[in-house]
Amino acid sequence: MSTDGVFRIGVLGRGTVGSAFAQLVEEHSARVQRITGMKPVVSGVLSRSSGSFPEILESSELIVELIGGIEPARTYVLEAMRAGRHVVTANKQLLSQYGDELFEVAGQAGVQLRFEAAVAGVVPVVRVLQESLAGARIDRVHGIVNGTTNFILSEMARLGLPYEVALAEAQRLGYAEADPSDDVHGRDAAAKMAILARLAFGAPVALDQVRYEGITHITPDDLEYARELGLALKLIGTAERLGNGLSVRVHPAFLYPGHPLASVNGPFNAVTVESAAITEITMSGPGAGGPQTATAVLGDVVSAMIPPASPPEEMVALPIVEDVVSAFYLHLEVADEPGVLASVARVLSEHGVSVKSVVQRGIDDQARLVMVTHPVLESLFFAAAASIGQLGTVRTPPRAIRVIEEEF
Amino acid sequence: MSTDGVFRIGVLGRGTVGSAFAQLVEEHSARVQRITGMKPVVSGVLSRSSGSFPEILESSELIVELIGGIEPARTYVLEAMRAGRHVVTANKQLLSQYGDELFEVAGQAGVQLRFEAAVAGVVPVVRVLQESLAGARIDRVHGIVNGTTNFILSEMARLGLPYEVALAEAQRLGYAEADPSDDVHGRDAAAKMAILARLAFGAPVALDQVRYEGITHITPDDLEYARELGLALKLIGTAERLGNGLSVRVHPAFLYPGHPLASVNGPFNAVTVESAAITEITMSGPGAGGPQTATAVLGDVVSAMIPPASPPEEMVALPIVEDVVSAFYLHLEVADEPGVLASVARVLSEHGVSVKSVVQRGIDDQARLVMVTHPVLESLFFAAAASIGQLGTVRTPPRAIRVIEEEF
Repeated sequence: MSTDGVFRIGVLGRGTVGSAFAQLVEEHSARVQRITGMKPVVSGVLSRSSGSFPEILESSELIVELIGGIEPARTYVLEAMRAGRHVVTANKQLLSQYGDELFEVAGQAGVQLRFEAAVAGVVPVVRVLQESLAGARIDRVHGIVNGTTNFILSEMARLGLPYEVALAEAQRLGYAEADPSDDVHGRDAAAKMAILARLAFGAPVALDQVRYEGITHITPDDLEYARELGLALKLIGTAERLGNGLSVRVHPAFLYPGHPLASVNGPFNAVTVESAAITEITMSGPGAGGPQTATAVLGDVVSAMIPPASPPEEMVALPIVEDVVSAFYLHLEVADEPGVLASVARVLSEHGVSVKSVVQRGIDDQARLVMVTHPVLESLFFAAAASIGQLGTVRTPPRAIRVIEEEF
Repeated sequence: MSTDGVFRIGVLGRGTVGSAFAQLVEEHSARVQRITGMKPVVSGVLSRSSGSFPEILESSELIVELIGGIEPARTYVLEAMRAGRHVVTANKQLLSQYGDELFEVAGQAGVQLRFEAAVAGVVPVVRVLQESLAGARIDRVHGIVNGTTNFILSEMARLGLPYEVALAEAQRLGYAEADPSDDVHGRDAAAKMAILARLAFGAPVALDQVRYEGITHITPDDLEYARELGLALKLIGTAERLGNGLSVRVHPAFLYPGHPLASVNGPFNAVTVESAAITEITMSGPGAGGPQTATAVLGDVVSAMIPPASPPEEMVALPIVEDVVSAFYLHLEVADEPGVLASVARVLSEHGVSVKSVVQRGIDDQARLVMVTHPVLESLFFAAAASIGQLGTVRTPPRAIRVIEEEF
């Protein structure tokens, strides 16, 4: 590739991550040279106001894309790959929406497309799914892939804060943006789960195939009851094989205490990969931040400096399964009168939902009924919950949160 | 390397792992071909009774070494690398004792030497230290790198079992060998920490530079007090920079409840890598077992199929620091009479050891005194403990276990 022992890296974007990356390359140049045999050099930086993309492309072996968003990032990345340049990107929107196109062009051009930083920063989930576990049939991936929401839920649990107060605290500390919509509604996590599902199952998955819910409706009460039930509440992304299909989704879920993700607190990310042959691997670490993202990008550059072009995997489409099995936590505000529990239990039973545990507590003239169900098809549970909402003795809309159990 | 699109793998050793590996290659051949562009084929297997090393070498692009032990594994591995073949090995003895020689020959020959399976099986610590974190200055690595001892300690904690009973249970379940010495005395963990220290700090570290202690002296009482103090007791390997030197050691240690390794139970391995810029990454999963090791070996083969030869890092020797700072748990059986606590406290204070918490409990005519100290140089603490052992009111030798705290 490079003949003079120098490996030239063109950087698109001059934000926090771009600057941190350029500095890392300089600081760790000697170490990278020891590992790869070549000296890494930033050959040019494109910003809004300076630099020329054709010139940077011409003078680089690899392009690092840190612009973000769809355009012009997509055009630049495609053009770079078509010109035979490897690409490292931290752009989850681009990958989760245009993955098919990007992987196809990378394959045709015989270049590498690396994107560890797009999912969980330095937490090496992409590398593990593509290389370490190339010889394992993966059954399921569970992830806490959004640090903002994990921080908010951790603070709500730790201090009993309402959602809005925990969000404000996250914004004050720089863990949430001024407009946190993509994070708190689960869309950011959904994009990352689309990318992980593609890697885990070798199947094309796009963002619009991922069902997602956020955390804006979670209350301190939910976390209080979680504690009583010995559970941890997290925003969990799931990608799993179900029969000949797969399901990819993001929603708040309770985890049993021994679950490897149950103890992941604060602005951290973590992913558990399950495979029957090897049981499971869990990786955790800080979510995206300037230094973490820049470190992950440089890690990808180092990996790309070692290997030559390798064609990426071809994809086989798997059907997306919409209705999956889950246990549920169901929270009801009911009239404190005889027969309420019986009527709720009857509706559940009519829909085939069986109850595992119940906590009932009176408050003035009403009562709070919190139950955890055994695993059941979601469609049956939601039909039951809708019927329960119609009961005259149920005062507010039923609140439902999925529970991830040790064994189904 | 291969010109016909086939990548030939010669396997040395026909044990459980060798057989599992050959089967995985066949099962996942199509997937590996999609990732790397080449079809992997086992070209020959060397066992005690069949196969010829020169023939296997001649017909392979890469040699997988699964013989274990020093000879003849060392000779075969060196010969394979000198003949220009990449090597993947699961042999921790070889790497921890002959690392310098192996890396030097790999560098001279321009071939890859990969060994993820030698440390923590499919838990990708080697990959992360070498690639993901190539751009991070690593300060410290903490690891639970021996599944046997972690299982024993977990069972002692969970069921209050004595060491011998938990060991027998581990043997019954196949988590401990008939002769468990290397595991329970910490030597296996020490070999793995030598390998990790080499990767983390780019410095040569050999097994005989690692101080290690095992778990044979741990009692159910220690675990009971751990619970009272809110701590988890694990056999922890540590490799850390200290000034311009480094310390590599293995010993039982208490972990504060939020420590990422505190919740790793059963026969699992886990490693936390700390770096100021990126805070920390933790990886956990099953320790070595047939399927895990074979999967890890295939993961390394896939990585080696992608890249061409790359020279390994040159090493800079760092001095080994013998005396490090730690907090301690100190357990004393003392006479139940006035002034005992005062005399113990005086000895500690004379040696500069300050006490953070104390639990005292009377049992018949004697008392049990359990204290946790603030961090102090180990030499000072052990001098204090030796003096305390001389006190007439102290009935049995003091028991000391290190405590890993959240912040020093």
